[in-house]
Amino acid sequence: MTLKTAVLGASGYAGGELVRLLDDHDGFDVVHLGAHSHAGGVLADVHPQLRGGARPLGDIDADLGSLDIVFLALPHGASAIIGQRLREAGVRVVDLGSDYRFAEASRYAEAYEHDHPYPSELGHWRYGLPELFDVKDSHAVAVPGCYPTAVLLAIGPLVRAGAVSAKGIVADCLSGVTGAGRALKEELLFGDVAEGVRAYAVTRHRHRPEIEMGLDLLGADGATITFTPHLVPMQRGLLATVTARLVADTEPTAILAEAYADSPFVEVIAQPPQTRWTVGSNRALVAAFVDNRLGVVTAQCAIDNLLKGAAGQGVQVANLMTGYAEITGLPASGWMP
Amino acid sequence: MTLKTAVLGASGYAGGELVRLLDDHDGFDVVHLGAHSHAGGVLADVHPQLRGGARPLGDIDADLGSLDIVFLALPHGASAIIGQRLREAGVRVVDLGSDYRFAEASRYAEAYEHDHPYPSELGHWRYGLPELFDVKDSHAVAVPGCYPTAVLLAIGPLVRAGAVSAKGIVADCLSGVTGAGRALKEELLFGDVAEGVRAYAVTRHRHRPEIEMGLDLLGADGATITFTPHLVPMQRGLLATVTARLVADTEPTAILAEAYADSPFVEVIAQPPQTRWTVGSNRALVAAFVDNRLGVVTAQCAIDNLLKGAAGQGVQVANLMTGYAEITGLPASGWMP
Amino acid sequence: MTLKTAVLGASGYAGGELVRLLDDHDGFDVVHLGAHSHAGGVLADVHPQLRGGARPLGDIDADLGSLDIVFLALPHGASAIIGQRLREAGVRVVDLGSDYRFAEASRYAEAYEHDHPYPSELGHWRYGLPELFDVKDSHAVAVPGCYPTAVLLAIGPLVRAGAVSAKGIVADCLSGVTGAGRALKEELLFGDVAEGVRAYAVTRHRHRPEIEMGLDLLGADGATITFTPHLVPMQRGLLATVTARLVADTEPTAILAEAYADSPFVEVIAQPPQTRWTVGSNRALVAAFVDNRLGVVTAQCAIDNLLKGAAGQGVQVANLMTGYAEITGLPASGWMP
Amino acid sequence: MTLKTAVLGASGYAGGELVRLLDDHDGFDVVHLGAHSHAGGVLADVHPQLRGGARPLGDIDADLGSLDIVFLALPHGASAIIGQRLREAGVRVVDLGSDYRFAEASRYAEAYEHDHPYPSELGHWRYGLPELFDVKDSHAVAVPGCYPTAVLLAIGPLVRAGAVSAKGIVADCLSGVTGAGRALKEELLFGDVAEGVRAYAVTRHRHRPEIEMGLDLLGADGATITFTPHLVPMQRGLLATVTARLVADTEPTAILAEAYADSPFVEVIAQPPQTRWTVGSNRALVAAFVDNRLGVVTAQCAIDNLLKGAAGQGVQVANLMTGYAEITGLPASGWMP
Repeated sequence: MTLKTAVLGASGYAGGELVRLLDDHDGFDVVHLGAHSHAGGVLADVHPQLRGGARPLGDIDADLGSLDIVFLALPHGASAIIGQRLREAGVRVVDLGSDYRFAEASRYAEAYEHDHPYPSELGHWRYGLPELFDVKDSHAVAVPGCYPTAVLLAIGPLVRAGAVSAKGIVADCLSGVTGAGRALKEELLFGDVAEGVRAYAVTRHRHRPEIEMGLDLLGADGATITFTPHLVPMQRGLLATVTARLVADTEPTAILAEAYADSPFVEVIAQPPQTRWTVGSNRALVAAFVDNRLGVVTAQCAIDNLLKGAAGQGVQVANLMTGYAEITGLPASGWMP
Repeated sequence: MTLKTAVLGASGYAGGELVRLLDDHDGFDVVHLGAHSHAGGVLADVHPQLRGGARPLGDIDADLGSLDIVFLALPHGASAIIGQRLREAGVRVVDLGSDYRFAEASRYAEAYEHDHPYPSELGHWRYGLPELFDVKDSHAVAVPGCYPTAVLLAIGPLVRAGAVSAKGIVADCLSGVTGAGRALKEELLFGDVAEGVRAYAVTRHRHRPEIEMGLDLLGADGATITFTPHLVPMQRGLLATVTARLVADTEPTAILAEAYADSPFVEVIAQPPQTRWTVGSNRALVAAFVDNRLGVVTAQCAIDNLLKGAAGQGVQVANLMTGYAEITGLPASGWMP
Repeated sequence: MTLKTAVLGASGYAGGELVRLLDDHDGFDVVHLGAHSHAGGVLADVHPQLRGGARPLGDIDADLGSLDIVFLALPHGASAIIGQRLREAGVRVVDLGSDYRFAEASRYAEAYEHDHPYPSELGHWRYGLPELFDVKDSHAVAVPGCYPTAVLLAIGPLVRAGAVSAKGIVADCLSGVTGAGRALKEELLFGDVAEGVRAYAVTRHRHRPEIEMGLDLLGADGATITFTPHLVPMQRGLLATVTARLVADTEPTAILAEAYADSPFVEVIAQPPQTRWTVGSNRALVAAFVDNRLGVVTAQCAIDNLLKGAAGQGVQVANLMTGYAEITGLPASGWMP
Repeated sequence: MTLKTAVLGASGYAGGELVRLLDDHDGFDVVHLGAHSHAGGVLADVHPQLRGGARPLGDIDADLGSLDIVFLALPHGASAIIGQRLREAGVRVVDLGSDYRFAEASRYAEAYEHDHPYPSELGHWRYGLPELFDVKDSHAVAVPGCYPTAVLLAIGPLVRAGAVSAKGIVADCLSGVTGAGRALKEELLFGDVAEGVRAYAVTRHRHRPEIEMGLDLLGADGATITFTPHLVPMQRGLLATVTARLVADTEPTAILAEAYADSPFVEVIAQPPQTRWTVGSNRALVAAFVDNRLGVVTAQCAIDNLLKGAAGQGVQVANLMTGYAEITGLPASGWMP
């Protein structure tokens, strides 16, 4: 079986990784690449590192109703109508974007400060973090943001088990620069990024409501989190450092180990996870450190923001949606010691 | 007036910066450079970037009793006896190391897991963070660690003003790699550091008791902090992101602005401070962001870990100890936009 | 068919990449990992990024006579006796090291400034740059150094075609830091490498005689080259910039294109090749630029020093030695746009 | 004496460094900052690392006829009319740009592929590389490009002394990314630059005719050079590796040492110069390596592209134009070991 597949938004960093992964996956046959401003060009114009560079870049609003599955890697807002249309046409859709991540329109409005354009559509989508939420046989899945992926993998099982309070969690997260996308902004020039770190969107990043939603889906009753994302001078990698109050006499590491016992991509380790050990793979490395003096746990999760935090998770989800083995086509080893 | 000066521990990163700053300072005349394993060589062996590379590297236990002031940039434990001896000989001492930072031997023991070798000596030293603690006319000053400097500058005035609770503070800090020193460890090789981030010493870093001591000196009654340091792939720079519970209806930014109104090196800004804007200077950039929904403040401080976090602060302290203007010889502008 | 395989020298950067590639290759079953100083530990001690981290690290001088093929990624000098012993035992050997690259002992002596320990063994080995020299069905192959690979791919076909003079070639090469290995040297610390470039071994690097040998194998009669390697602050990637005098009225780009028409990994492009477009893959990107004013061509080749420059080329060679398709198990797309 | 000074083009990387240096120089009082697209804002908008961030950014075509000296750090073409107007008004001008570097309009046309707009103006300007060409008491000086500075410092004295042939020189140069300016181009994004190297403008960079002019000014009769610039993933620093044929039985290192015996900023060393040892200073480190086998010398020069390659050299030139000591206000030590 080979599924006819399209990638819309192929010119960005995550889009390029989608193409690379799908090219190496026997189950998907990429028959259309859509790009917004680069439509009319070829793949090598935007991703000279990929084989098959002569493949044409087409429109993002081509008629794809006859395909089996479409991956969306579009800017915020651009997936809404395309995703709805494809889903209604019976095409499976994996959206790496943020338009369909929220079950409730109110959370969407809180995060994005405007109403959702198609609130009735929200109920048709599932939240695609497969280690914590079931997506098998779904037809439309919104893949979590990179930060929510890492934060929820680090602390989600502890909230679900009642081991920690879901109120007053502090999550400081560090992301490589590809996480900020490929837009032409002076603040993303090498000369303005290298050799420095910075936080951004302090107290008001739109992934904060998404993380709180995820914790509530896991059983919290009104989770609250202080979330501070930081940009780090590296291409890829994301580290979440999450501090929470322990409210039960439990072993956080044991809870995490049990939660991920059957997850092929999540490994619970005893030392602080380094992003390097995940970059290039779909792995997530998780660890928890208890401070008995204060009754506090610091849980961490390291991922590759473009793979487990975006394209890799998208393929993992697509495998589950279509009946392939979960690990098919996904690298299990990283690139850097 | 020119003071006869020595730098002991000149071969490390902070030691090199001390030499560079003192060379450009009219008030200090560096007459002795001490290095441990490189004694017998010349300055250019360890710091080819510095002018005057032919200057000899001597012993760290040379007889320096006739000097006016000595800067120590030695590994932990190595300052104890040298510092005591110099102080008793009437030489002013600025210690960048950790041997004399604690007023109480019990805190020292908690941090370093062994007893202080000369507990009676502790009372002779002051804690040299001049924006928060007076060091004028002192004879022996221990300069704070790089992390305590940034964390205390971010949150200290808020604790002192009673604006936040000193219990349950969370401080996630990001440091450039020079902060880990110049030791030969595989984990510090370029090939093992670049393109990745990691936390280390989670729940048990020795700067945690030092920060709690600093907060108690500012009026807290048993401050507690969850402190997680991270290593970031950049040479220099340190960012502290500190989250605390607001306990009074106050304006954190106004409190900080007032606290630093007369400080030539600390600037309170409205946006998240970037380490790049401080690297190369003795500046500290501070900002505070309030989340009214949760009653929480996230305060940040960015510094150059080798300047305001080490050598620059040492010279600032020395200026105050010796009667020079506080800013003498210290760069007010950074290197990177 | 699955071949029983060992990797000796698994703890280094190239050794780790060998393990990663072979793990993803259906034709090789890695049954032994040998490491020198880490013997007795497990793979995760040295390569936490790899799956199967619990696999034991054994000795490098284990009895491997029953295996089908052994990859050597050992320091200079360490392959000589092991390689000979394995070859004589009928085991296929792929040596990433430098012990058996030279056909003539005199060149070896020139490069390494000592006599070869087993000169009579040299004739049993082939030089494994498959795009230029045949290695099909060989039993013992020495893979070229990373610099010779790139320089020979850039200029080799032009020398062979008589388009350029093989005298007075200038090759300036830029390598990522993993090319210098994983040894504990101060000059390889992040704090001593980042944000700087340097040449090293100017006029006396040991890859210079190897390149000249390669050109002579291609028909030059006493090629001479000025070779200057540089270290660049990046993990991976190698760029050769090679300038030579044109001696015939030919089209260098056409010659290169014809030379590599059947090579699955070498692509001739029209713009200056970037190392980023190759890192993560076994690709080599080649381009040539003619300065008609001076009658000079500048040819360039970009590769991933750890893949096409080491482990990837090793697997490519092993595929050819054992009858697998040349591209089996080798990534055709890079990681970075 | 304090000279009333303006900097035009203050928003770029070199412009920022000019402001930083002049702020620390007692002899210049910066009374006007001109910026093109940022006019109307303040200095902190473009250079938050600098003190005095509240200073206004004005127009680049303000009336500056009453000033003593003006520094131009403008894009190519923008200095021509402003420079002429200021010079005719009797204001001293230091131009970091390329409009007035050529003595002959024909070389300008060759480099920039269009005629010079004011060819009669060219004769009024001197070429400001003070170690090789006299600029004392000049009124209008064009500072060389960063690449010509390094290449001419490396090889210029050897050409002047007749030690090497000025024909067929090969110069491969490596520059930090700030050398490419601060323009919004996708190829300069951190995500498109980090972890890779590339050449650009191969065979046709506009600094090539400038270098050949410099060599001819030093006595060559029609120097020819193959010049290949490369971009390296670091902020600052420039390394020139220059290979030339020896034509006399001389000692290149001795010639260089004699040539720079009285130069406060150029140091001839015995090992390959690292850019790190110069970054932050106005130093140039030079070395030469002879290959007797081939009769070839490889000469190298490392500088900070923004200081000795731009702003620092501009201030050095201004010191000489105005009678200050050559070293005034210029850092003699770098930042990195």
